Amino acid sequence: MKYNFADRINHMDSKEISQIMGTLSNPKIISLSAGSPSMDLFPVKELKECANMTYTDASSSIFQYSTAEGFLPLRNWIVNKHNLENNTSFNEKNIVISNGSQQGIDLVSKTFLNKGDVILCENPTYTVALSTFKSYECNFLGIESDEHGMIISNLEKAIESVSNAKLIYIVPNFQNPTGSTWDEIRRIQLVEVATRHNLVIVEDDPYRDISFVPNVHSSITKFDSFGNVISLGSFSKSLCPGLRLGWIIANNEIIGKIALAKQVTDVQTSYILQQQVYNYLTKYDFQKHLKNISEVYKDRCTLTCNLVDEYLPESVRYKKPDGGLFIWLKLSTDVDTLKMLPKAIERGVLYFPGELFYTDRSTKNCLRLNYSSVKKDKLVEGIVKLGEVFNK
Amino acid sequence: MKYNFADRINHMDSKEISQIMGTLSNPKIISLSAGSPSMDLFPVKELKECANMTYTDASSSIFQYSTAEGFLPLRNWIVNKHNLENNTSFNEKNIVISNGSQQGIDLVSKTFLNKGDVILCENPTYTVALSTFKSYECNFLGIESDEHGMIISNLEKAIESVSNAKLIYIVPNFQNPTGSTWDEIRRIQLVEVATRHNLVIVEDDPYRDISFVPNVHSSITKFDSFGNVISLGSFSKSLCPGLRLGWIIANNEIIGKIALAKQVTDVQTSYILQQQVYNYLTKYDFQKHLKNISEVYKDRCTLTCNLVDEYLPESVRYKKPDGGLFIWLKLSTDVDTLKMLPKAIERGVLYFPGELFYTDRSTKNCLRLNYSSVKKDKLVEGIVKLGEVFNK
Repeated sequence: MKYNFADRINHMDSKEISQIMGTLSNPKIISLSAGSPSMDLFPVKELKECANMTYTDASSSIFQYSTAEGFLPLRNWIVNKHNLENNTSFNEKNIVISNGSQQGIDLVSKTFLNKGDVILCENPTYTVALSTFKSYECNFLGIESDEHGMIISNLEKAIESVSNAKLIYIVPNFQNPTGSTWDEIRRIQLVEVATRHNLVIVEDDPYRDISFVPNVHSSITKFDSFGNVISLGSFSKSLCPGLRLGWIIANNEIIGKIALAKQVTDVQTSYILQQQVYNYLTKYDFQKHLKNISEVYKDRCTLTCNLVDEYLPESVRYKKPDGGLFIWLKLSTDVDTLKMLPKAIERGVLYFPGELFYTDRSTKNCLRLNYSSVKKDKLVEGIVKLGEVFNK
Repeated sequence: MKYNFADRINHMDSKEISQIMGTLSNPKIISLSAGSPSMDLFPVKELKECANMTYTDASSSIFQYSTAEGFLPLRNWIVNKHNLENNTSFNEKNIVISNGSQQGIDLVSKTFLNKGDVILCENPTYTVALSTFKSYECNFLGIESDEHGMIISNLEKAIESVSNAKLIYIVPNFQNPTGSTWDEIRRIQLVEVATRHNLVIVEDDPYRDISFVPNVHSSITKFDSFGNVISLGSFSKSLCPGLRLGWIIANNEIIGKIALAKQVTDVQTSYILQQQVYNYLTKYDFQKHLKNISEVYKDRCTLTCNLVDEYLPESVRYKKPDGGLFIWLKLSTDVDTLKMLPKAIERGVLYFPGELFYTDRSTKNCLRLNYSSVKKDKLVEGIVKLGEVFNK
């Protein structure tokens, strides 16, 4: 039978990503390509205790159908944390629990995007977000960034160059893929520009809690007085991805529509897991856990930078990140990292070619290294191999 | 700020459903309106044991990012059950695990529907499916059914009346809202018609395991030799909705696209919960559990029918279902059950007005009763109240 699939699904092309994913499970290959946290840092023992509490003490209503917005105590806990950290004044009605922040991107898309709408984003940016947005048949304008964030004058020019700009999507802290962080001035300028043009900002902030420096800049919601900033968060990096728990914080009118979208998409995120994570957050010292895992990631990051200095060509440029999971390497302009990937796999190391993070695939000579999911001895082995690939 | 929401979200109207949901949490009102299984039948103790096993014995990879398709042992288990029951020959590559069968409907929509495509469905049909489909800006043609299933000649005429028919959506067993079941001849005829017109059939089968009769008709996938039947299943009614675990079974080409849609929607369904349910299915006697809960539901169903006979107007018509959670009442044609709802709420009983299940809202005099979520004493009290409302 010849199937009449939707146009959106025919537009989706994940050939390269599938190839990378397919190689991931090969135990002979050291993967520096994933966006994964480290399995040895997941608080499995504590989560077990919290699962036990859930099945012993919780109201049986957590096993039943419930509201799309999510488990009220967890929503309160997250909103309080957000308010404390960012001096905002959201309440439990401003949040919807999602299946990781990836579903946050999907639900925001479902709520806002018509076919042909334009999304303004950093260039490069998180590649799976591009795929999610593409599934709503939108177009992109990628905006250049420097070390302080998006170049705001370029953003404004881009907005004015089209008639149907709709959303601005950014990863403000320890960005995927570049590891870079927006400074406060750019955050304020971003809100000004978005407000002037009646655009909504989507702040995707899953790495916030993995910081190597004492102070993380405030969420962009802090600078929002018009209700046009949506903030996405996640427990995938701070606890573990297998929980599939994230959240969306936004003003009342937006969050009402997002809850409606959630309801018709999958009714609700599991209240069993929400209760369990709420138990964790109230019974254990989450801040201490974050400090511990951030220290491990900082160590691995520093080691990776030192190894890059030692083993990769001198022409390689990078900026050491202040948090998150990634280092972004710029190789000399004649190198095509996507074309080099099969050679790297042959040598037993996997990275993520930079080209796939660009809206226009215009830049060929970069790659993303993940240091979080690999232990130190494998990091050494992997980067030595990478050096062999790119020194040839 | 004036938000530019997507057209699809402005099309979604759930005013009445929100009203019903809002009343659900009022403990003074007996709800015969929900689509919920009974909380006292959830195997919480067993699930606790299985959670413990999960955190103690399972591979730590279940806490990590993984493939969109789902946890392989669970996929194998479900496919084997499906094959055994229906004499089909699917394998683990023919299934994707979803967040309940509601997400199955969403992912199928994402994979197949362009704006303006036509869905053919039973009339009445599951109202939240209509909302999900509507979020993809499709149109509906509702097809009349009799006690054997959809009237196939009407279906074929409807298909031929439009140029862009895309999917046929049906609930073949113990339908929501009518409780009716398709016979085997209609199932075979349905596949013939769909194949002749190059259409895909979506079989939504969440009530299959809640049967009051020894033999349930085969899944429509049994009669499919062209790969155009998609089957959706769920553990929400058989175990509990809070797990958010369902599945999609389809031919290779379709399931590949659905996995892609799943990937960009929310990466994967929680492998922690998938491992836990797999533990349950392999450690406990699931068939015995199904027999137990089906007996309770059958009892409640019989009681409800008897109470309807005794307390509701003689003009009321219904057919006693062979399984599932619902009885469908037809009142005399001058009754408008949506208009009567506030009066019922005033008296302390809630039902689901039939009108909301129709694609065209054409029929006003029906209502759906749920007997599964309420214990016997409350069933009596609720239907006595309902009698008072409709005998006035």
